[in-house]
Amino acid sequence: MQKLSRLFMPKLVTPKGSVTKNVEALSRSQRLMNELGLVKAAGNGFFHFMPVAQRSLNKLCNLVDECMLETGGYKVTMSILTPTELWRQSGRLHGDIDEFFIVKDRHGKEYLLSPTHEETITSILAATAPISYKQLPLRLYQLGPKFRDELKARFGLVRAKEFLMKDLYSFDRSDKEAEESYNIITSSYSELLKKLQLPFEKVEACTGIMGGKCSQEYQIISPVGEDRLLRCNQCQYAFNIDIAEEDGKGCLKCHSSSLTELKGIEVAHTFLLGDRYTKPFNATYLDSDGKPKSLVMGCYGLGVSRVLAASLEVLSSEKGLVWPALLAPYDVCIIGPKEGSKEQELGDIIEEEICTKIAEICGPDNVIHDDRKYLTIGKRLLEAKRMGYPLIVVVGGKSTGDIPILELLVKNHHHELHVDTVLTEICKYKDHKTALRKRCH
Amino acid sequence: MQKLSRLFMPKLVTPKGSVTKNVEALSRSQRLMNELGLVKAAGNGFFHFMPVAQRSLNKLCNLVDECMLETGGYKVTMSILTPTELWRQSGRLHGDIDEFFIVKDRHGKEYLLSPTHEETITSILAATAPISYKQLPLRLYQLGPKFRDELKARFGLVRAKEFLMKDLYSFDRSDKEAEESYNIITSSYSELLKKLQLPFEKVEACTGIMGGKCSQEYQIISPVGEDRLLRCNQCQYAFNIDIAEEDGKGCLKCHSSSLTELKGIEVAHTFLLGDRYTKPFNATYLDSDGKPKSLVMGCYGLGVSRVLAASLEVLSSEKGLVWPALLAPYDVCIIGPKEGSKEQELGDIIEEEICTKIAEICGPDNVIHDDRKYLTIGKRLLEAKRMGYPLIVVVGGKSTGDIPILELLVKNHHHELHVDTVLTEICKYKDHKTALRKRCH
Repeated sequence: MQKLSRLFMPKLVTPKGSVTKNVEALSRSQRLMNELGLVKAAGNGFFHFMPVAQRSLNKLCNLVDECMLETGGYKVTMSILTPTELWRQSGRLHGDIDEFFIVKDRHGKEYLLSPTHEETITSILAATAPISYKQLPLRLYQLGPKFRDELKARFGLVRAKEFLMKDLYSFDRSDKEAEESYNIITSSYSELLKKLQLPFEKVEACTGIMGGKCSQEYQIISPVGEDRLLRCNQCQYAFNIDIAEEDGKGCLKCHSSSLTELKGIEVAHTFLLGDRYTKPFNATYLDSDGKPKSLVMGCYGLGVSRVLAASLEVLSSEKGLVWPALLAPYDVCIIGPKEGSKEQELGDIIEEEICTKIAEICGPDNVIHDDRKYLTIGKRLLEAKRMGYPLIVVVGGKSTGDIPILELLVKNHHHELHVDTVLTEICKYKDHKTALRKRCH
Repeated sequence: MQKLSRLFMPKLVTPKGSVTKNVEALSRSQRLMNELGLVKAAGNGFFHFMPVAQRSLNKLCNLVDECMLETGGYKVTMSILTPTELWRQSGRLHGDIDEFFIVKDRHGKEYLLSPTHEETITSILAATAPISYKQLPLRLYQLGPKFRDELKARFGLVRAKEFLMKDLYSFDRSDKEAEESYNIITSSYSELLKKLQLPFEKVEACTGIMGGKCSQEYQIISPVGEDRLLRCNQCQYAFNIDIAEEDGKGCLKCHSSSLTELKGIEVAHTFLLGDRYTKPFNATYLDSDGKPKSLVMGCYGLGVSRVLAASLEVLSSEKGLVWPALLAPYDVCIIGPKEGSKEQELGDIIEEEICTKIAEICGPDNVIHDDRKYLTIGKRLLEAKRMGYPLIVVVGGKSTGDIPILELLVKNHHHELHVDTVLTEICKYKDHKTALRKRCH
């Protein structure tokens, strides 16, 4: 079990009366994460993940890996530095390249700090002995840092210049089979966001510089969202306002003029690319007739650090963080009597017992014990509520009666319960999490 | 269970009669990993991890995380881009800076692609409300990509320009307590290398540009090692030749002149840094007397991708890969009858049964089924041996007798065994792995 006294949470200390700069660019999640010492700013648009946020990020990464395994994805890691010549070959290094970080090595050779890896993966396939149609579909993904020199980095992890992304690339034999891959993978994205219990819309979007045939975005609905979306009240079709018809003809599908406008945080963008990259790079497969043909490609980006930030943004209140159950850094926080208090002697025994039992139920790694007994229960409870631990168990004044009563906070709702009932509730919560994780399987 | 037919292993295809460039810079591990499609070169000194190598790397990362948890380390992620001004403050951006990749953003601000994070972590601590002596020791680590523009990138992953590193930073109250941290963490490094069953030496080394009071390296003993080491035959003390006395006075400890020279691949370097970084950055803690004092620091780098490469380098033969048991991408490879062979009908049934049973023992994710039945058993077996799967099970000609006999290869030694004996051997192997993982706990 982890001890809160040992946990490094470098809280932001704002001198009284000081004025915070750029306050308009601080979203709710960013402000709370800063204040609670979950992330530290590392310059404009760059962030460090401190231990508690890192735990949550690890959980999200594991969840993403599970989803990818189910879609038949194989994990790889591609070099972060990509020779710019590859991007010249695809034509993506023309026009406005200010968004790219470009670095030269000691010999003057230029590399991109990769914002995405379509060119790389396609060139790997092109440099390989052509794969057989029997090996298709091929779905390769990675989980790693990406870079974009945003003109306006905003809202902390929501729009950062260095961010964690999961990018998957699919290769198929035909458009039809590419669409099957597309459906399987995008379904897994919907599934993931449902597991996280986030309000989202899958919207038709612009293909932009990526190119290809069509694209869709996954948008978390939030007032701080920078994307404007339209959802048809008639047929539920949703699309990014970027692709709305200029003369405002309404729904792109059923032409209804009854549309609801929403704001969204884009957390994923998926594309059917056809041969946009495989043709220029000559990435082929050997078809059943023995002839080489261009692979049909799809790509699927998921902003992992952005999903975490967006989750906290839409679920939290001004008063404190609220985590998706599957991403909470710990399931339970346990707070015992203050040292020197009249209930300490008996309370400490109960505290120790309950720590052991809860660790057995949840696994020791999922329990955080606020052992800072030099602080009052009230002060520790206030902090625990701001941190948004899903369950908080307080061994307080009523714990030393003939029938010990503990306080249990479930999503910050107080209950006074017998020890056994507290444990039952914790078991229920664990079952709830398991069900959530396995939903629809 | 994973199917080999679906696994992407982009094998190197060398046209007959072609001459391989830079053959002198190819180490054994690099050649095999290239040929078998485990890694792909991405330019000089850059590499992509393909699915099989990625699996091994994941296992190593998990093992490292376990080790770090035991030493009381908390995981963080620091920004890869570090403002150069931080390194000017520490004085490390003077002199030969060709080894650093430096990138400018759209506003001309300069960043390092961090080769290490002493400045960053120290500045985080300095920017935090001083921590109390009660919170010490503090041990923070991360696992992520690092960059160094090597003049001579060599031997593939052994010396790459972009590599995966685990870096830990310890902060203590006094030199004495810093030494305790140092001993705990370096012991865990020794423990890790023992779990991987690698021949290594812990040697006294030069502190170099890092600075600080003393440093030690972990060297995997190998003929391709670029470091020259001396080990005293008298007292076993070992040191890097860089710190040998110029007039060759022998062992630095007991002055014996009987020394053995070894070559090593440096996989880790640990430093006691004193206040080398905490003083210039003013990173302090509040001592029991209420006064701020400089934190006493240590840093501990472990080249994770290099450990993997060095393992394969020292364990493998010219004929094929040999993995540390805990890093093998799969525990068991299963090969069944060729399609159309006379033993196929009966053999297929046994193959299916044994696949199920082995998956139950090892976990489905640790078993690879070579289902490419269009290839002969011989061809698949040859490939499996080159891949170095710890256990290979062949359902061949003798599997269809009254008492079915299977072939089991343990580290490439052939055995002909009854089905039950094969399963018993696999159980034994699994127990062996578990014991290895838990050794000395």
